Amino acid sequence: MQAIQDAYPDDVGHCYGCGRLNPHGHRLKSYWQDGVAVARFTPEPYHTAIPGFVYGGLIASLIDCHATGTAAAAAAVADGVPIGSLRFVTASLTVDYLAPTPLGVELELLGTPVEVKGRKVVAEIVLSAGGSPCARARAVLVRMPETMTPR
Amino acid sequence: MQAIQDAYPDDVGHCYGCGRLNPHGHRLKSYWQDGVAVARFTPEPYHTAIPGFVYGGLIASLIDCHATGTAAAAAAVADGVPIGSLRFVTASLTVDYLAPTPLGVELELLGTPVEVKGRKVVAEIVLSAGGSPCARARAVLVRMPETMTPR
Repeated sequence: MQAIQDAYPDDVGHCYGCGRLNPHGHRLKSYWQDGVAVARFTPEPYHTAIPGFVYGGLIASLIDCHATGTAAAAAAVADGVPIGSLRFVTASLTVDYLAPTPLGVELELLGTPVEVKGRKVVAEIVLSAGGSPCARARAVLVRMPETMTPR
Repeated sequence: MQAIQDAYPDDVGHCYGCGRLNPHGHRLKSYWQDGVAVARFTPEPYHTAIPGFVYGGLIASLIDCHATGTAAAAAAVADGVPIGSLRFVTASLTVDYLAPTPLGVELELLGTPVEVKGRKVVAEIVLSAGGSPCARARAVLVRMPETMTPR
């Protein structure tokens, strides 16, 4: 199955968090399955906050990219166009850190679209480690505005 | 002037976002000046979202570390203890992306403590590029819990 991010056109495929064309980045890959988006990611040992735990900025970053992917897929399905043909950016992101996220295990992200309306999508994301939720987020995503045309 | 993060003890100085002891990370440095925290950071060319603009995950990351630094300094001042002797972690973070953040210029972060009470601090952060606000955030920070003792 192709990842949502791998279906983005080349000119918007350089995101540090999820672009397949950014060799420095995380290259997060989110998969659309039965109306939700799923991603897995194992942080590097240096992605630490307090030693032994994952840096909160990485958690927010993964959630951000997974949310835009969730929106891109949900909106494409709603519009009846191929996944990857619509690109979303984040307007607002709220992350609640529920528990310290252990470093050294694979993280799972689950993205659920809760509102898909016109140019806007609201998505809820849960990030878990070993089956335990560590962060929960709500993101408001909007279609990429013309002011963000790739430069 | 010493950065807030450079005053943290060694065992909590490895944060990917702001730890002086993490050679892979961003090493954000926040300075406490007249009741607010100020930081400056120039993203790398590969910290891109859509080409030409800064990746939202990096923006959230910088805000996260600047907020914990703001809380650490504000709480230390309130308690009459040296800055660096208290360490905070993020309980909740809301980032509103006001405008696309241009890549290639220095970013400025301003952190204002709006509530300092016991083990909790609320901080507001504004991230600007060239004097224009690009993101505004509200963070709830709490003293590092014992469950996060460095491992």
